[in-house]
Amino acid sequence: MRYSQLFGKTSKSIPSDAESINAKLLTQAGFINKEMSGIYSFLPLGYRVLSKIQQIVREEINLLGGQEILMPVLSSIENWKKTGRDKDWVDVLYRLDNMALNPTHEEVVTPLVQKYTFSYRDLPVAVYQIQEKFRNEPRAKSGLLRGREFNMKDLYSFHKDEKDLNEFYQDAIKAYQSIFNRLGLGKITYLTYASGGSFSKFSHEFQTECVTGEDTIFVCDRCHTAINREIIQEQVMCPDCNSDKLRETKAIEVGNIFKLGTKFTDAFGFSYVDEKGAVKPIIMSCFGLGPSRVMGTLVEVFHDEDGIIWPQSIAPFQIHLVGLAPEAFGVYEQLKKHKLDVLFDDRDDVSAGVKFATADLIGIPIRIVVSKRSIDAGGVEIKNRNSKETSIIPINELDSAILNYGKAR
Amino acid sequence: MRYSQLFGKTSKSIPSDAESINAKLLTQAGFINKEMSGIYSFLPLGYRVLSKIQQIVREEINLLGGQEILMPVLSSIENWKKTGRDKDWVDVLYRLDNMALNPTHEEVVTPLVQKYTFSYRDLPVAVYQIQEKFRNEPRAKSGLLRGREFNMKDLYSFHKDEKDLNEFYQDAIKAYQSIFNRLGLGKITYLTYASGGSFSKFSHEFQTECVTGEDTIFVCDRCHTAINREIIQEQVMCPDCNSDKLRETKAIEVGNIFKLGTKFTDAFGFSYVDEKGAVKPIIMSCFGLGPSRVMGTLVEVFHDEDGIIWPQSIAPFQIHLVGLAPEAFGVYEQLKKHKLDVLFDDRDDVSAGVKFATADLIGIPIRIVVSKRSIDAGGVEIKNRNSKETSIIPINELDSAILNYGKAR
Repeated sequence: MRYSQLFGKTSKSIPSDAESINAKLLTQAGFINKEMSGIYSFLPLGYRVLSKIQQIVREEINLLGGQEILMPVLSSIENWKKTGRDKDWVDVLYRLDNMALNPTHEEVVTPLVQKYTFSYRDLPVAVYQIQEKFRNEPRAKSGLLRGREFNMKDLYSFHKDEKDLNEFYQDAIKAYQSIFNRLGLGKITYLTYASGGSFSKFSHEFQTECVTGEDTIFVCDRCHTAINREIIQEQVMCPDCNSDKLRETKAIEVGNIFKLGTKFTDAFGFSYVDEKGAVKPIIMSCFGLGPSRVMGTLVEVFHDEDGIIWPQSIAPFQIHLVGLAPEAFGVYEQLKKHKLDVLFDDRDDVSAGVKFATADLIGIPIRIVVSKRSIDAGGVEIKNRNSKETSIIPINELDSAILNYGKAR
Repeated sequence: MRYSQLFGKTSKSIPSDAESINAKLLTQAGFINKEMSGIYSFLPLGYRVLSKIQQIVREEINLLGGQEILMPVLSSIENWKKTGRDKDWVDVLYRLDNMALNPTHEEVVTPLVQKYTFSYRDLPVAVYQIQEKFRNEPRAKSGLLRGREFNMKDLYSFHKDEKDLNEFYQDAIKAYQSIFNRLGLGKITYLTYASGGSFSKFSHEFQTECVTGEDTIFVCDRCHTAINREIIQEQVMCPDCNSDKLRETKAIEVGNIFKLGTKFTDAFGFSYVDEKGAVKPIIMSCFGLGPSRVMGTLVEVFHDEDGIIWPQSIAPFQIHLVGLAPEAFGVYEQLKKHKLDVLFDDRDDVSAGVKFATADLIGIPIRIVVSKRSIDAGGVEIKNRNSKETSIIPINELDSAILNYGKAR
């Protein structure tokens, strides 16, 4: 893509209403546009990152055995009356006539799965969707971290007994860890014990350590586990190794998983017939992860004074080509021939300094510079935004260099 | 995917509240579930088809030069007051406090593009999204053909003059024709002249001929063009060849494209500075295509008394493997090794007849049957749902047969 044709350019001015680092940088760099409080449009750069996050989530949840579906935004308020959450969630639930704009989908997925599930042979079932959620949030002031309309992956699983649920729950924890590893957040994201419900002592959150985080967690560095402040009074030691060497830190909740037991299946009278013909309760779990919130978190974590520094796996383009000499056009064609997804700064009306500032702000980690200097030195300059390392590659060796670059990652 | 594990099985009973062929067959075959009038969930089979349609649309609109973005469901009612459509669209506009659930996005995209567009150098711009729309439809009784919540691809283009708009408009017509060709609808889908607006004499619809269609069109078979009944009084001859041999038929509107002129850009005071420094009006076009409606249309068009017959390009799986002998498990593994997406009916508690009925209802065109009979005859049976042709392939030649099958398509 030629930068001159890209919709959504970088801006020098800091948005006056951006209350958070992610809102500020994503707006300045042309990734998102604030439409209303807590409601954003994703411009082409932003949509590319969001899609890549969603795709990583999709691949890992598919591997876990989740089946992708799509449920509607609108649901009947009758479903919410059955579970009592028309009242319990009254503050955040957007209502429209006799309908709700779903803030979560237990009230939709439970009767849906019930329709197709009769006996033990139909269990377990795990279905998920990647879709927009709506919550009337008074505190929608953190960019993509807390929205009134936001993107969510929500997985729901239905089991014949607790043993089956527990096995799936452990597999889901591993799937989440794979997701955060692939997003470059693995090392700083902790499986965090949080308050449970009537069915289990704890629920689990995935908390990403970040100085700007709203949450406080206590990390056991030995187990790479944490405890949410809300339960530290009752749980003063690491639940995994009993260590009391816990480190207090700030974090952003990037996922949460919850054993729901029969709370929702009971409300809808959803049971099954076991091998012996007996009617048994169905127990349920839910697994949330917000791709748009993860996108905001990545920016809170990975940036410097010049802009964003995306992990390569979800950068909006694979390469940022800075064109400062006519030879750049040939290099662009060469990169495209290798099916590489390149953002080519082809502008002829801005200085080299502006182009570098643009690249710094957008934050694609691999940058190729074609300038008179690089041509004189025998080729193109390849830079890595993370390591600041630079090397000169002769143009006629660019093909093999790209292949090696690909292998090294 | 093993059918025994698939969420959303086929059902023998005809849904009592299905008023249309597409709702009936898609529900019976386990593709969709009706949540409320005009509001559906997509089960795994249905979500796969919807995604494939969306992907074909995405690829062709990207080739046209559209840049994918994502705008929110919710917008400020102030935007709708600026264009007067808070009143003009009052019947279908869902309102929530000071917000609207967007039934279309001109009121969002126009000020969004305005933010990033200043001079002739920033034009043309074409942005699109694939996203859910909301309309308070009293006649939501046609399954996926007319929903209150439905999926839409909406493309908006902004131009410096009419010549530029007209060129893009013609290219968009070609992109739409490519889309309908790839969806298997090309031969029966007509570029249809319909009523224009203040800016152009005509708008254009894409109408798919179908006996159950709501619309009436007059087709010129020579030009593969049509005229919508709404303008046949003023336009009695084919606008392309002046023939008066027009054939009246029923059709479903699967897309529409419209030259909007300055209707929306004027409302938002959106203009640009030309090469000479003069302020000029920006003219605009919009291009709609509903993937969920297209899915309903495909079923209305492609079915027989036994079920759906999907075009191969958007079938939920590439192959339906009917397992009637233990050798089927090995064939399943062999097909998966070729990265083929296979629905494997592995059930051990239903008859061959039930499995064939299931396959007929679901409608994946390529079917492989592994039975005692096929094994005795030396291999597996390959059937094509469209042509009803059957051939026996030896299992050790299955690999090359699959490759040839792939090449033939």
